Amino acid sequence: MVEADASAPCTDPDIGNVAQARRRTRGPSLDKTAQTRQQIAEAALAEFVEVGVARCTMDRIARRAQVAKGTLYLYYPSKDELLRGVVEHALRHSAVYTALQRKKGETVRAFLRRSLLPTMDAVENSERGLLARLVLSEASHAPELARLYKELAFDAWQTYVQDLLTLAVKEGELKTRSVSRSAQLLASPFWMALVHNSLLAPDAPQKLALKPLVELLIDNLFSRSAGDNANVKSQ
Amino acid sequence: MVEADASAPCTDPDIGNVAQARRRTRGPSLDKTAQTRQQIAEAALAEFVEVGVARCTMDRIARRAQVAKGTLYLYYPSKDELLRGVVEHALRHSAVYTALQRKKGETVRAFLRRSLLPTMDAVENSERGLLARLVLSEASHAPELARLYKELAFDAWQTYVQDLLTLAVKEGELKTRSVSRSAQLLASPFWMALVHNSLLAPDAPQKLALKPLVELLIDNLFSRSAGDNANVKSQ
Repeated sequence: MVEADASAPCTDPDIGNVAQARRRTRGPSLDKTAQTRQQIAEAALAEFVEVGVARCTMDRIARRAQVAKGTLYLYYPSKDELLRGVVEHALRHSAVYTALQRKKGETVRAFLRRSLLPTMDAVENSERGLLARLVLSEASHAPELARLYKELAFDAWQTYVQDLLTLAVKEGELKTRSVSRSAQLLASPFWMALVHNSLLAPDAPQKLALKPLVELLIDNLFSRSAGDNANVKSQ
Repeated sequence: MVEADASAPCTDPDIGNVAQARRRTRGPSLDKTAQTRQQIAEAALAEFVEVGVARCTMDRIARRAQVAKGTLYLYYPSKDELLRGVVEHALRHSAVYTALQRKKGETVRAFLRRSLLPTMDAVENSERGLLARLVLSEASHAPELARLYKELAFDAWQTYVQDLLTLAVKEGELKTRSVSRSAQLLASPFWMALVHNSLLAPDAPQKLALKPLVELLIDNLFSRSAGDNANVKSQ
């Protein structure tokens, strides 16, 4: 239905970048800018989910976001920049990226449960979940989306968890043959639940619940060193 | 490229089922029948991967399998039956369905490592891996494929592993809060590796390796009960 438009160019030489626009017009307020940016990213994500990355057009996204096409190009001069914007937006609206601080005396195990589980559990209905589902269905047609998701979500999350587990090893709370494998394990139920709940059994009354799965995984991981946990402070 | 043909009917009233055909012609040998059935299932899987389930036609599958179209309908009278044939074929050619027997005195933990790991490790290049990748990309367009995969692969595997873990609990080798969650955990690295290696980073020189991940998972799962393992016979 939008195929005639699918080859519409995503760059326009007449339109400068946001910085230039600001100089020209004294610029909208920072709040307004952030709001428009978010509005566009949300519309683009919804549009990608609905018609696919390859078939969606800047025209339709502008209409959905209720901004002028020129405004859209001002914020995102190309489709690749828009893709990055969409990925970054969805990730920012995900609790795992909320910078939680470890409380004084809190074990890494307790901190992992406190910081990872709420996101994991909410993932089905969050923008992050929507993005991950989009990646499943679109990655083979939109390699740039897959690349961005890997860089900004998959790898970033691995690094975050790996750093936490390294700390747990250093503090004597965790014994593991491989910190990086253990971090990979912690991400794996996310993918299984996503595949099960949105691909294999989208209409099932019983969803595969992520939270108890990750809870069990954390417990199993840390229980290996249970004997060594006695002298780790916990609150 | 095959769209003109996409609506070709998948049933033909003139063609009977295999049993009737056998009566008419005295029938091909059982070996020959099994070979033709396999030949068609392999061609169909390859065709599904190449053009998608919705767009592929019985004509193209017959040509690829090098059988007459009538022969194809003889074995698989409808596209849904063909889908089931493809799923069953791919699963049969997967080591996890080889009925391994537990050796005398072998712990469930050792048996799990011996029976699950070879399949998991080989999955990237097996027909089962190809099928799972097909499910990722096609499930939303081909709900019947998703339903069949869930029934014949996902649920069947869960039941198999759950029965094994129940045995391990009964024999005092495993302590777990939930056998079914633990069985789910054991499947989860498969999905993460699949998503990583075929969607997020198909061209990466470093694949995410499944075998060490599952090994670590089994060890973590059983180590919770390490203290109780001393009196379990192992060979």
